[in-house]
Amino acid sequence: MKTIDLNCDMGEGYGAYEIGQDDAMLEVVSTINLACGFHAGDFSIMSRLCREAATRGVAVGAHPGYPDLWGFGRRKMAFSDADLENIFAYQIGAAQAVARLNGHMLTHVKAHGALGHLVADEPRIGELFARVVARLDDALFVTSMTPRGFGDIAARAGLRVAHEIYADRAYMDDGRLMPRGQPGAVIHDAQEAVRRVLEMAEGRCIITATGKRIPAPVDSICVHGDSPQALPIARAIRDALEAAGWRIQPFCRA
Amino acid sequence: MKTIDLNCDMGEGYGAYEIGQDDAMLEVVSTINLACGFHAGDFSIMSRLCREAATRGVAVGAHPGYPDLWGFGRRKMAFSDADLENIFAYQIGAAQAVARLNGHMLTHVKAHGALGHLVADEPRIGELFARVVARLDDALFVTSMTPRGFGDIAARAGLRVAHEIYADRAYMDDGRLMPRGQPGAVIHDAQEAVRRVLEMAEGRCIITATGKRIPAPVDSICVHGDSPQALPIARAIRDALEAAGWRIQPFCRA
Amino acid sequence: MKTIDLNCDMGEGYGAYEIGQDDAMLEVVSTINLACGFHAGDFSIMSRLCREAATRGVAVGAHPGYPDLWGFGRRKMAFSDADLENIFAYQIGAAQAVARLNGHMLTHVKAHGALGHLVADEPRIGELFARVVARLDDALFVTSMTPRGFGDIAARAGLRVAHEIYADRAYMDDGRLMPRGQPGAVIHDAQEAVRRVLEMAEGRCIITATGKRIPAPVDSICVHGDSPQALPIARAIRDALEAAGWRIQPFCRA
Amino acid sequence: MKTIDLNCDMGEGYGAYEIGQDDAMLEVVSTINLACGFHAGDFSIMSRLCREAATRGVAVGAHPGYPDLWGFGRRKMAFSDADLENIFAYQIGAAQAVARLNGHMLTHVKAHGALGHLVADEPRIGELFARVVARLDDALFVTSMTPRGFGDIAARAGLRVAHEIYADRAYMDDGRLMPRGQPGAVIHDAQEAVRRVLEMAEGRCIITATGKRIPAPVDSICVHGDSPQALPIARAIRDALEAAGWRIQPFCRA
Repeated sequence: MKTIDLNCDMGEGYGAYEIGQDDAMLEVVSTINLACGFHAGDFSIMSRLCREAATRGVAVGAHPGYPDLWGFGRRKMAFSDADLENIFAYQIGAAQAVARLNGHMLTHVKAHGALGHLVADEPRIGELFARVVARLDDALFVTSMTPRGFGDIAARAGLRVAHEIYADRAYMDDGRLMPRGQPGAVIHDAQEAVRRVLEMAEGRCIITATGKRIPAPVDSICVHGDSPQALPIARAIRDALEAAGWRIQPFCRA
Repeated sequence: MKTIDLNCDMGEGYGAYEIGQDDAMLEVVSTINLACGFHAGDFSIMSRLCREAATRGVAVGAHPGYPDLWGFGRRKMAFSDADLENIFAYQIGAAQAVARLNGHMLTHVKAHGALGHLVADEPRIGELFARVVARLDDALFVTSMTPRGFGDIAARAGLRVAHEIYADRAYMDDGRLMPRGQPGAVIHDAQEAVRRVLEMAEGRCIITATGKRIPAPVDSICVHGDSPQALPIARAIRDALEAAGWRIQPFCRA
Repeated sequence: MKTIDLNCDMGEGYGAYEIGQDDAMLEVVSTINLACGFHAGDFSIMSRLCREAATRGVAVGAHPGYPDLWGFGRRKMAFSDADLENIFAYQIGAAQAVARLNGHMLTHVKAHGALGHLVADEPRIGELFARVVARLDDALFVTSMTPRGFGDIAARAGLRVAHEIYADRAYMDDGRLMPRGQPGAVIHDAQEAVRRVLEMAEGRCIITATGKRIPAPVDSICVHGDSPQALPIARAIRDALEAAGWRIQPFCRA
Repeated sequence: MKTIDLNCDMGEGYGAYEIGQDDAMLEVVSTINLACGFHAGDFSIMSRLCREAATRGVAVGAHPGYPDLWGFGRRKMAFSDADLENIFAYQIGAAQAVARLNGHMLTHVKAHGALGHLVADEPRIGELFARVVARLDDALFVTSMTPRGFGDIAARAGLRVAHEIYADRAYMDDGRLMPRGQPGAVIHDAQEAVRRVLEMAEGRCIITATGKRIPAPVDSICVHGDSPQALPIARAIRDALEAAGWRIQPFCRA
């Protein structure tokens, strides 16, 4: 049976604040990326979601970001490379322990926001990130948005890599995501998102805005949880994949 | 050969702020309790101290506190029991990972400040704390200030316990520390501190302000790092213990 | 013409986080209480709302709370009286300046959450609060939930007092709000809330859960903005008041 | 009688943390720049220093910085121009109110750290800063490090400008401070600092590292408080100035 993963960022609230519809989304995805308390999330949100995920058989990964709650981790910040190593390690360790407290365990790490862009775009930081993850637990997966770049770096560091495509984002011909500012960068139509996802999953490729097909492993589909349409889009994708014969399960079990 | 441990709270700075004389104290003690970024400390201070400790053969434990940088973890705060479990797990996990990143590993956990008082004084919280530590890693030690109370709770939870005495604090006849406000609660004179420590270590007992001797295991001597006299007192204690034939080594290796 | 004020807490987001429906509520109320960046709110949320309020002729007051973003200012925290004075002054000053930057000015101060309860319930803190407000600007109003208690304290301090009733909360026979935990404490039905508000405004009294009428000045009606029904309830109250011949305007202009 | 001001950054602690020797320095300087709780400082440190300054006749200004306690305001951060306006206004207002609470009043504003560099180096931000200060209180002074640049911008905005020289920093031939990294940028020798200060004050000029003299108004001498030698250097400067017939008083009273 064909298997594929659906992943979603989650636990992005803080104290009384909420972003997204975590509980409803937990019913749809097979893997979550858990904010670790620096750009969003806190010890108790993390704990509750680990427990819920354990109950449902949903895989949990750490989603570390910059220490920047106000900026939601979306701003680049000045840190030394050593600081970045420590920022990654601290958050991954916190998430590991909170998962363990709830009878669960981390399966992967995915860097958030501006830190995620740094990992994807700057080989030195990609290497640094992979090195930290490998040193903490070389059984952890990392996710990679494109077949090349960080995916290769992580593989060289001895890590397992889950390649993911984005359900609601257009790709450029170099295989990278179109920046959010550009027209057409974000796909708001559920049917369009579903159609693209099916085509990329079946074809094991990325399809760019110009229609170009770039062969690529597709282990997981990233859906977003912080827009009003996120939930119906995610459900539509899951339904369509299952109707097409795919089994949705965590990439770590593939 | 008689062995004993010297422990000290450490890494209590934050960003540009410093408290205590961490580097000098690292030369004197055999075990440090590392602030974990909630009441004090940050990812990079933690990382640097783990690396230094690894180099010197100094043992490192997590020293989790309330999320209260302004109050330095000294104020009791309103959290549910579930929140407290998560607060402990998060910080312990963060410290575990930062230690591992630097080729070191955690040997113990000691709760800080108001949270430490809660653990020592409220059996329900002591049990909660021991349960969290045991669940994360049952090879971890916890420290206990008195032979009874939390020490027993932790032992029942299957944890190893390091019993510690305080070099610079007076004891009451019930075996507890005299509250800081009371006259004579803090011992400022190095010679007096040294004399008491030797007597308690040799006698395997706590000596109270009234001269009463309470039999007690003495695995470690806690010295403080945040007063100007802390360093000379700690050095005097180490010198006196070594002169009396004690070998100073981490309690986890005893 | 009969005039009355409608007030609402506002600006309770932080960075990317939002609570409530500030923009829609700004169309309904005549006065807002602006979170000042300690328990919620930030410099830019405050600034945007001051500008919007100035444009609409909506009055703005400071809504200072404990420095406790995680707890949303709802937990009592340990601070000295001097600290509390400084906590109030700091936030009020910040709000004054942000209002002035946007061509607006503060009309009142209302303490938030656990700090608000302290002001209402502990005369020493009520006096402290009134003294700070009077010292910063004795033209500022303070709000008071009940005719007695803090209202009297503030008047003695030379401050102008706006007496407010709560649209969605039941009262006890001593004139105080029924604690949230008790059955019937929160009124969820819009028609019920409207009926009560009209009766209390017309009768210049508080009506308790047992039907007792306590004579009281009613300068303002507090509606809440952080529940899903908040907006329709606030609109229904405004419509009913206007239909009954009331003119809605800031209490500071009455 | 010739008069001149001595100013120093102050109140840069946070909670239990301290930086510098505020109390001793308060005896030496005539004006302090008060950290406002974003990059350093808190409501109670600010309040205590305002009270002490009021008692001693020392002038107080706001010293706003980036909201970045970890980075001590020394890192450039991504904020929109509107955010920067709000960041300035919020902190200035907070400081105004805390001063007023203590019977004192603000005399000036000086931007801190990376924000100070932005104000000095980017005319658009200099204009923004001057506009915010003028809008809040056009009787406030701003400080300017060099005769040209921000000093002119502020004067055009209708603000009064206090021109300051740095006691312990070398100047380049364009009148700007030599960056800290360069050899000779920081003057550690008290006698050298004293000699330079006297020469620049008497000559009403800046003297550069190459010996060039740039005519400049000299209203105030900035001494630093966060190095171990800061206090003896500041005292030596004050003594030498007084011996040379200068009267030390706040620039706002000149």
